[in-house]
Amino acid sequence: MHHKASRKQIDTVIAAVRTMGLKAKPIPGSQRTAIGVLGNKGYIDDLSIRDLPGVKEVIHVTKPYKMVSRDFHPKGTVIKVANIEIGAGKRPIVIADLLRGGAFKPRTGPHTFQGLEREGLRLLSLAKKRSGLPIVTEVMTPENVALVEEHADVLQVGARNMQNFDLLKELGRIRKPVLLKRGMSATIEEFLAAAEYIYAEGNPHVILCERGIRTFETATRNSLDLSVIPLINELSHLPVIIDPSHATGKRSLVPPMSKAALVAGAHGIMVEVHPEPDKALSDGPQSLSIEGFGEMMKEIKSLISFLGFDR
Amino acid sequence: MHHKASRKQIDTVIAAVRTMGLKAKPIPGSQRTAIGVLGNKGYIDDLSIRDLPGVKEVIHVTKPYKMVSRDFHPKGTVIKVANIEIGAGKRPIVIADLLRGGAFKPRTGPHTFQGLEREGLRLLSLAKKRSGLPIVTEVMTPENVALVEEHADVLQVGARNMQNFDLLKELGRIRKPVLLKRGMSATIEEFLAAAEYIYAEGNPHVILCERGIRTFETATRNSLDLSVIPLINELSHLPVIIDPSHATGKRSLVPPMSKAALVAGAHGIMVEVHPEPDKALSDGPQSLSIEGFGEMMKEIKSLISFLGFDR
Amino acid sequence: MHHKASRKQIDTVIAAVRTMGLKAKPIPGSQRTAIGVLGNKGYIDDLSIRDLPGVKEVIHVTKPYKMVSRDFHPKGTVIKVANIEIGAGKRPIVIADLLRGGAFKPRTGPHTFQGLEREGLRLLSLAKKRSGLPIVTEVMTPENVALVEEHADVLQVGARNMQNFDLLKELGRIRKPVLLKRGMSATIEEFLAAAEYIYAEGNPHVILCERGIRTFETATRNSLDLSVIPLINELSHLPVIIDPSHATGKRSLVPPMSKAALVAGAHGIMVEVHPEPDKALSDGPQSLSIEGFGEMMKEIKSLISFLGFDR
Amino acid sequence: MHHKASRKQIDTVIAAVRTMGLKAKPIPGSQRTAIGVLGNKGYIDDLSIRDLPGVKEVIHVTKPYKMVSRDFHPKGTVIKVANIEIGAGKRPIVIADLLRGGAFKPRTGPHTFQGLEREGLRLLSLAKKRSGLPIVTEVMTPENVALVEEHADVLQVGARNMQNFDLLKELGRIRKPVLLKRGMSATIEEFLAAAEYIYAEGNPHVILCERGIRTFETATRNSLDLSVIPLINELSHLPVIIDPSHATGKRSLVPPMSKAALVAGAHGIMVEVHPEPDKALSDGPQSLSIEGFGEMMKEIKSLISFLGFDR
Repeated sequence: MHHKASRKQIDTVIAAVRTMGLKAKPIPGSQRTAIGVLGNKGYIDDLSIRDLPGVKEVIHVTKPYKMVSRDFHPKGTVIKVANIEIGAGKRPIVIADLLRGGAFKPRTGPHTFQGLEREGLRLLSLAKKRSGLPIVTEVMTPENVALVEEHADVLQVGARNMQNFDLLKELGRIRKPVLLKRGMSATIEEFLAAAEYIYAEGNPHVILCERGIRTFETATRNSLDLSVIPLINELSHLPVIIDPSHATGKRSLVPPMSKAALVAGAHGIMVEVHPEPDKALSDGPQSLSIEGFGEMMKEIKSLISFLGFDR
Repeated sequence: MHHKASRKQIDTVIAAVRTMGLKAKPIPGSQRTAIGVLGNKGYIDDLSIRDLPGVKEVIHVTKPYKMVSRDFHPKGTVIKVANIEIGAGKRPIVIADLLRGGAFKPRTGPHTFQGLEREGLRLLSLAKKRSGLPIVTEVMTPENVALVEEHADVLQVGARNMQNFDLLKELGRIRKPVLLKRGMSATIEEFLAAAEYIYAEGNPHVILCERGIRTFETATRNSLDLSVIPLINELSHLPVIIDPSHATGKRSLVPPMSKAALVAGAHGIMVEVHPEPDKALSDGPQSLSIEGFGEMMKEIKSLISFLGFDR
Repeated sequence: MHHKASRKQIDTVIAAVRTMGLKAKPIPGSQRTAIGVLGNKGYIDDLSIRDLPGVKEVIHVTKPYKMVSRDFHPKGTVIKVANIEIGAGKRPIVIADLLRGGAFKPRTGPHTFQGLEREGLRLLSLAKKRSGLPIVTEVMTPENVALVEEHADVLQVGARNMQNFDLLKELGRIRKPVLLKRGMSATIEEFLAAAEYIYAEGNPHVILCERGIRTFETATRNSLDLSVIPLINELSHLPVIIDPSHATGKRSLVPPMSKAALVAGAHGIMVEVHPEPDKALSDGPQSLSIEGFGEMMKEIKSLISFLGFDR
Repeated sequence: MHHKASRKQIDTVIAAVRTMGLKAKPIPGSQRTAIGVLGNKGYIDDLSIRDLPGVKEVIHVTKPYKMVSRDFHPKGTVIKVANIEIGAGKRPIVIADLLRGGAFKPRTGPHTFQGLEREGLRLLSLAKKRSGLPIVTEVMTPENVALVEEHADVLQVGARNMQNFDLLKELGRIRKPVLLKRGMSATIEEFLAAAEYIYAEGNPHVILCERGIRTFETATRNSLDLSVIPLINELSHLPVIIDPSHATGKRSLVPPMSKAALVAGAHGIMVEVHPEPDKALSDGPQSLSIEGFGEMMKEIKSLISFLGFDR
């Protein structure tokens, strides 16, 4: 709609879309309102809409995602977690282990430790109270979304669940931010379409996270695909962060890849830190020591200043 | 345990395992009972078990799957669906569209047709009543397992949900057969570990299904990995079937790949058939016409006879 | 050209093509002659050709290969090696180690045994004299083509050299058959385009060989892509054989995959055999023993009879 | 050897290695000389070497590369091209099209423009004379190495030829720098082993170039694997540069990925520039305009200063 379109004009367009048997979702922006037309199975004749008063243009979107695309929302989305802002022009964030913990853990086999579950959530809440830090934790099934939402500041969807569509829909019904990890062999289009599931259901607070894709290379655990950062920044308005620890599986690669990600336009990084990486029950080889993390943060702060973000 | 081990000897071993703080799961076979020892985080000293009366041998399994492995269950598992038997030395089955239908459909984007859901299940039940054919249909979330179980003869887990562990666990609590599709980039080890989730929870009726893996090749939709058939037959006692329609995405490749799969040792194939493939709402290019299906079946029947199965 | 087109009509078309600044290559078939038009950088206006006497139809080919495509040569090519015929409706061949040996060996690192080179060729010739069997051996560089041609019955291009275009062109200038292995991550289109390099230079005796593609899977050395067999049979007239030993890297998978390949339409298989696989200097785990090979051959002979080929 | 080891001590060790039937290659460094022991097929008993006078330590290398590894040459190699230095602590270089041109071009199919060959080299020489800029150009076959060496300042090996071992060996016999591009699906180990072929033959002037690997992703042409930069910097002393134009295939991704590469530790970048990208005969969509290149260079210069290199 034109930026001067009136409330009544917007309602008229919405009504016209519904008359066509389709859904209309108004998406208010800072300057103007877009109206998402959903539910069509093919090309729609826009004759009855495009000349209505207040309509600026009709954009036909053939991608499997619409609401998360830049076309619909040219300005980048900023997501609030406690008093931190993530996305668009905001200072990039660093999510270290202090903030993160797995109460429910996705494990390849059923005979491995599956997380402390409810007790884990209780401990995370306690940690939050003591540290004052917000909590990111994974949710694996729709029926636990409400429970996890009570304790977490950000709900994480793991790579294996990127296309667990019922989980995504359930997360679309809450208001807390969701951190959506890219599937191991998901294309960018599938990744954004997964985000669209959450967004279309009503929750616009989606943070995307690249965590490496599966390739033939065996020297690193996965292949960190940094080119998705500028690509997502072109295609979508959602913030994108990087997990170099899981992606590379090697501690020494975490600092250079973290810095590279920020320069490429990432809105944050998420790294594993452990007081004694060699004694960690899992993921030791990829975890930074407290000291190593401190050194990396010095460099990152300097880089962030150079890139033009305050303090 | 020795094949002559008494019930009491088995119970003594189970008790000894539990004393060690571990779980013991008896797995009765046709000739002897195996006892799965689960819950350990590393190598276990078997000193207190291996010399107990009735113990034949202690096998240390380092894989993320145990109960679905051949080591535990040397004889192939046969799964009953209505009056059909799948697996081991049984005549390979052919699952065509008459038997299969999607009430819940996993779609890349949220704005595409998501299936008829409950109404779809009702229609499938009706189709079953009229045709007398058993039904295979997909379930996507733990909370729908009970509902789908009421209508379906086989519950399918799609490739995107292969590591939806809560769904797998829920399917482990029912008694109906589960058709588990391999994830798009799942290794064989991860595939069998996913089956182990269902099996370990109590449901041994798991059918594995290879449906192509994701590679760089663009001439076929996915790359059908037939070498997993003999590999799974070595590593696991579960039956394995092939879906050449989804794997290749090309109708003309379905008959040769179906026959190749059977020769390689597959326990069945699952193919798309459509009365008018060119008018199909989805998956037309990969669907056989009724006529094409008939021609393929003639060849397959002849091949199955050659391979030594009765009509 | 029409099957009744005269020599003069053919020459007139060739001349007309050349007048357009393009190359014309007559490709005689069993029933009619095709004329390949090469050298164009984009779409050509066929106005001056299509109505010439004797012209049946003008087919525009946009693929990077033309002469090896079915469009140009609907009947399958049969290639003669000594008194053996490979391709089209001929009985599938089995290339075992008796026939094959590496004088020049492509090795990942320079410090590993690189083959006996000239001395190796001499030994192969000797082996041929004693056994009466034709020889397949690899050539790695254009300047050795003439030398290898003297000794070999079939010259092999390894996967690493599939796009060594100067080597391919040099092989296009000889008359002996070339066995072209698919590159580790070559698409089918690139594979056929590589064959086109040999064919277009003048040597039509090209045998294609699928040897597994590189994927994320680690349980097999490569992922044997059997769906390329029916796909190549659709797209090209060249024979295609399979190398299940290198593809899988596992002896036990060789017999089932060999049989599957033949059922899918392969014109032959190429397997590693070793008198004492456990003592082999290289590739032991994938080599069949003499006994194992014998058992497989019994099954293969029976399968070949079933498929309708004589003895 | 100890840094104080005498020439005689070094010779004694070399002789001792040869007595064992192995090759010994002295590798002089800035502080001390390493002696590469080559030609062994397995573990060597180092008893007769390790206690010789002047020997500091014996390192057993099991990788397929030795001479290009950091173990042998802890200090990074610096390569001179005209008056430019590449590698180690030197200011990163930018190779734009002004410097680069293809006289021999590797093309998927034989019917596409194959380069101007000799005439192309002549034109490149002319361009060099006029511009004063050094030339990088590709060589595809051993027999053209001498010819290309006459005209080029750096000889490039394309991704398709990374394992063309005869070409690599021939390039090992010249003294001009070689730019070795990573194969489309080459592991890091294979990449370094390919460099070892050149190095072991006598030419230590090898520059490695990452140009994207082949994966399932279709939004970018290849997947640029930036984590190889810190990984190569750990494993090898050779300089590594990045080609974001070919890797991504998208102009807009070139500036962010170039900057990310430099922050990750790349010794240079290589980008496509074209005066009129939309009219380029090939690779237009990935080429920067002169203006776009200028803007990127401003940012890169600023970044290079921040990273601590002089103008």
